[in-house]
Amino acid sequence: MPKQGSNRRPSLSEADIGLIGLAVMGENLVLNMASHDFTVAVYNRTTSKVDNFIEGRASGKSIIGTHSLEELCSKLKRPRRVMIMVKAGGPVDAVIAGLLPFLEEGDIVIDGGNSEFPDSVRRTEDLAAKGILYIGTGVSGGEEGALKGPSIMPGGNPEAWPHVKPIFQAISAKTDKGEPCCDWVGRGGAGHFVKMVHNGIEYGDMQMICETYQMMKSGLGMSNDEMHEVFARWNNGVLDSYLVEITRDILGYREDDGSATVDVILDTAGQKGTGKWTAITALDVGQPLTLIGEAVFARCLSALKDERVAASKVLNGPEVSFDGDKAAFVNDLEQALYASKIVSYAQGYQLMRAVSDERDWELNYGGIAMMWRGGCIIRSAFLNNIRDAFEKDSGLTNLLLDPFFEKAVETAQASWRNVVATGVKLGIPLPAISSALCYYDGYRTERLPANLLQAQRDYFGAHTYERLDKERGEYFHTNWTGRGGTTSSTSYNV
Amino acid sequence: MPKQGSNRRPSLSEADIGLIGLAVMGENLVLNMASHDFTVAVYNRTTSKVDNFIEGRASGKSIIGTHSLEELCSKLKRPRRVMIMVKAGGPVDAVIAGLLPFLEEGDIVIDGGNSEFPDSVRRTEDLAAKGILYIGTGVSGGEEGALKGPSIMPGGNPEAWPHVKPIFQAISAKTDKGEPCCDWVGRGGAGHFVKMVHNGIEYGDMQMICETYQMMKSGLGMSNDEMHEVFARWNNGVLDSYLVEITRDILGYREDDGSATVDVILDTAGQKGTGKWTAITALDVGQPLTLIGEAVFARCLSALKDERVAASKVLNGPEVSFDGDKAAFVNDLEQALYASKIVSYAQGYQLMRAVSDERDWELNYGGIAMMWRGGCIIRSAFLNNIRDAFEKDSGLTNLLLDPFFEKAVETAQASWRNVVATGVKLGIPLPAISSALCYYDGYRTERLPANLLQAQRDYFGAHTYERLDKERGEYFHTNWTGRGGTTSSTSYNV
Repeated sequence: MPKQGSNRRPSLSEADIGLIGLAVMGENLVLNMASHDFTVAVYNRTTSKVDNFIEGRASGKSIIGTHSLEELCSKLKRPRRVMIMVKAGGPVDAVIAGLLPFLEEGDIVIDGGNSEFPDSVRRTEDLAAKGILYIGTGVSGGEEGALKGPSIMPGGNPEAWPHVKPIFQAISAKTDKGEPCCDWVGRGGAGHFVKMVHNGIEYGDMQMICETYQMMKSGLGMSNDEMHEVFARWNNGVLDSYLVEITRDILGYREDDGSATVDVILDTAGQKGTGKWTAITALDVGQPLTLIGEAVFARCLSALKDERVAASKVLNGPEVSFDGDKAAFVNDLEQALYASKIVSYAQGYQLMRAVSDERDWELNYGGIAMMWRGGCIIRSAFLNNIRDAFEKDSGLTNLLLDPFFEKAVETAQASWRNVVATGVKLGIPLPAISSALCYYDGYRTERLPANLLQAQRDYFGAHTYERLDKERGEYFHTNWTGRGGTTSSTSYNV
Repeated sequence: MPKQGSNRRPSLSEADIGLIGLAVMGENLVLNMASHDFTVAVYNRTTSKVDNFIEGRASGKSIIGTHSLEELCSKLKRPRRVMIMVKAGGPVDAVIAGLLPFLEEGDIVIDGGNSEFPDSVRRTEDLAAKGILYIGTGVSGGEEGALKGPSIMPGGNPEAWPHVKPIFQAISAKTDKGEPCCDWVGRGGAGHFVKMVHNGIEYGDMQMICETYQMMKSGLGMSNDEMHEVFARWNNGVLDSYLVEITRDILGYREDDGSATVDVILDTAGQKGTGKWTAITALDVGQPLTLIGEAVFARCLSALKDERVAASKVLNGPEVSFDGDKAAFVNDLEQALYASKIVSYAQGYQLMRAVSDERDWELNYGGIAMMWRGGCIIRSAFLNNIRDAFEKDSGLTNLLLDPFFEKAVETAQASWRNVVATGVKLGIPLPAISSALCYYDGYRTERLPANLLQAQRDYFGAHTYERLDKERGEYFHTNWTGRGGTTSSTSYNV
């Protein structure tokens, strides 16, 4: 790929890559590519956006505006690389269908939107049958990440990767050691799957931070300035991360009249998209992803604002207030957030392992931690520890079992329990942090009460059970009532 | 429908209904119908099952064995009523396809399996187009319920209902006042949807009971005999219900050598089916169904038995044991279970209301409580209170706001908080009971921390937010960093 001076006017058929869809993410990716000396042809269905962009932010840069898919494709070097940044779902299929007449065998189509991973599985196969190489890639980092270096998680047809790698690894974020936060994730839907899990983890991280904020604000009565200081301090410790950093900034941000912006923002969060998909995938493959599940449901509950306002006037909480040492409790909160975060990533990795095993993707778990290390919303120092854990033991069953994390949770444990118990006592909901602790206590419990549950299922539905004193795979039925038949259930499953 | 003596040999074309699929549920439904003087023609793909049944349990009853779908249909009065009790999914479609050549306009096909409700929506429409009336019905009660009187929740094509009502209301369970636990639920998939929610609630009820069992066993060190007594006592109070009753029985059940059967059952529960679908539906429509979600995930965690055994040797819990008043704490457990159960049903009804509103089903909420009052797995005295709540106020937004339930939770609250805090202190996981308390505290919180979450989303993705000091529906964006553009996000949603 020849380097080009950014002020040289590009001639025909020389664009390194085309990009379709000039919303904020698309625009910023294009500017990022151009700043790395790639020539980019751009197209948007509403073509006035193309003109505005070319005359505005793209002015003087190696960016070519086009007004049709045909024109876009005519500007591209062979094999053509076309990246799609439009709304996930039908629009992506529509753009692909529109592109096909203007593509040749070996050309590469890249979907960089928030597609559901089964769609990327399907598109990879469908386009391979037409001789077109497909990549479905996660791109994370929001507005600013797209411009300055996002985390990029590409999967799909491995033959496409060598053609795209130089561009993607150039524009991606870099770790503090200069490694690109972009590498090949795996076949088919692996890229969008890992991006989906990333977003689910992002839901969890945000919810946990919100819970510590709620506890400081409503439980300890702290001011925005005080909380700003706490998050600033946390950002220099084990919680060092982008989301803690922006929380610090948000708590410090003021309106023109000096009041805190965060205080006038309505407390209702939407929940469409990848957080929900992550929880649904976990339910489908039977992996306990409780923290992200609670985070998604917490957004649902926040959306019922009118109901909550009405309920707050009817339903009473406990009549107690915090009477402990506030500074010590803030330290407990830091430990509770850290331990819960470890659980959340342990659950996320458990989900990735289950799906990877099922689909034979052979995901590189340490590599995924590095892709998330920079550029993306969940970037944090902590991901280095995850990478280290998988470098030490690539077959690690659960992050909690890695000696570093095991010790970290052990250290945090008393604080974590104190925080959850205090939330319970004060009536302040901590659904994500509580569910993390329940998971920790459940995961380390040799004997859970599911024996009773299996007995119940056998009692009312003849579902049979396995026994501790017999081999796994042998199923037994007890005639608990002395009534009923000996027929055991085959077609009826609860 | 003429009454027939059960010993009279039925002649051709006189069966009141046909039933396909002779697993335990199918067999028992047939015996139930025959015991109410209906003549039933039966068929099973493995026809030896038909012969065994006719020669065995069906012997001397008004039950006709057939060896093909054609023969089955030839035995039925017009309009034909054919009930399918086979595995949900493809097998149901296959049976319907096999039946069609032998059906006439106005005949009625009933699917009584655990079908996903969108399948029933589709089948109702597809068969209506062919002049066939379709019912998708939930049937609950397990083996014994099917035989002695299940809860039946029929939906689909309302024109079918008058033809099926006499049979279904005759064989269904009855409330203590003699009302049938079966009534028309609604169009399309409403019947299977309500059955799905029933099963989700069943998952929750079972998990909550298991958590109280775990607390008594591991936390208080109680024996099976002692716990047997506790559940016997609870079954005479507000928790009076089938699942508490069978738990009492299970804890009292002994092996031939005198040891407790429950102690040798492996603690791994499967989770396929309707519990999972309920949680997925809640995620899809954005309703906070946290307790059932946790119950499904608890089954997932129980299934990781080998991992848990390994983890139990590595991950430490707190070094404390219970030092309070055991008898008082058992009473707290009863209150915690009761309050959590109220939350679980509140969440389930919230989900039903959301889906009913979306699909214009006009579900009868009080009626649903009565259908669940007898016959089914979740039957309990408590459902009378739910019926009463909706009779007082058919537009009730949330069960927690009904004065009876509000007072019940108010009374239970201190005990409930003590139980959750004790679980946290002792390291005994109570995921369902804890999540119920978090929901209660969240639902009664006027101001949740989602304002911070919205600020974060606006910070990294320009997602915009609403303001407390402006009208709903107006969206604002803050340039938090002073960098970046003014473009707000349109295609990119986190």
